[in-house]
Amino acid sequence: MIILGVDPGTLTTGFSIVEFSRGRTTLLACDVIRNRSSRSMPLRLKTIYDALCDAIDRYRPDEFAIETAFYGKNAQSALKLGHARGVSILAAVNRQLPTAEYSPREVKKAVVGNGAASKEQVRYMLKSRMQLATLPKLFDATDALAVALCHLQCTTERRSDGRTKRSESWKAFAVNNPERVIRQK
Amino acid sequence: MIILGVDPGTLTTGFSIVEFSRGRTTLLACDVIRNRSSRSMPLRLKTIYDALCDAIDRYRPDEFAIETAFYGKNAQSALKLGHARGVSILAAVNRQLPTAEYSPREVKKAVVGNGAASKEQVRYMLKSRMQLATLPKLFDATDALAVALCHLQCTTERRSDGRTKRSESWKAFAVNNPERVIRQK
Repeated sequence: MIILGVDPGTLTTGFSIVEFSRGRTTLLACDVIRNRSSRSMPLRLKTIYDALCDAIDRYRPDEFAIETAFYGKNAQSALKLGHARGVSILAAVNRQLPTAEYSPREVKKAVVGNGAASKEQVRYMLKSRMQLATLPKLFDATDALAVALCHLQCTTERRSDGRTKRSESWKAFAVNNPERVIRQK
Repeated sequence: MIILGVDPGTLTTGFSIVEFSRGRTTLLACDVIRNRSSRSMPLRLKTIYDALCDAIDRYRPDEFAIETAFYGKNAQSALKLGHARGVSILAAVNRQLPTAEYSPREVKKAVVGNGAASKEQVRYMLKSRMQLATLPKLFDATDALAVALCHLQCTTERRSDGRTKRSESWKAFAVNNPERVIRQK
């Protein structure tokens, strides 16, 4: 299984591609798509879209994962981020990839085991887990790697849950087994 | 000259196509792209992108115009709007259309002559200027028509300015005629 993780931005979009095969996770790509600030927004969006389509065509990922945006930013920043997110998601959908979103907290919890971990802790764990000598310097690239690994972990956990028929919660159990729910009269 | 105007939104995206030829403006299309609220964001974005690409392929516009977003909204609304704007602009760029942006105030000023005009006033002027028996009910479609007409007006004004060599402002005059600017020593 190959996963494309993306951390979008109008100036720098990080992307990372990881492959999980026979119990081993391999890093295929971890880089950034750069846009000059002098470039117009329409051309920046095309650069992001084209580069992600190229990466998809090259590495043929099976699924796509992206971080949910941080709503604390002001409306103008959120609008700009929305442009970059929109074209990133479109690249995935236009290449028929299933898409998933994870909050920064979910990503940190999956990678470090602590939803409030610092960026440096996330980088340390990525380097250790992927057994890499060096990591890309830019946080955008490693954030993309983190969201790809988070999705990989969630997907493999869901699959193993499916095999063992273990429900995640009572609510999920009730939904999946309606005949076993006794309703009070 | 044919212009595509767009008023983007994740649930309803208005679009309008107008043709200006031999001093006459004709409405070729004025409609909305609808998305059900139950549809996922990735599929909504694909619907908007595909429908705009279809409209471009069908009517072959020369240029694309869109309203600048209203920054007063909260960050979450701005983020969603950003997704729809991003893929709308991308549709234009991927079809090699020059793009332009206008603020709501510029659009109202161009259509009604008053930047603070109400939506009803804008609709009244659109109906009158385009000599239409009826207008589409949805504001998203007529807002798209308004931005297309605003762009048409700005473009034709710029062209006639070019012919008469009339500069819009002292600043533009100074930029266009650097040899006539006397600098103080």
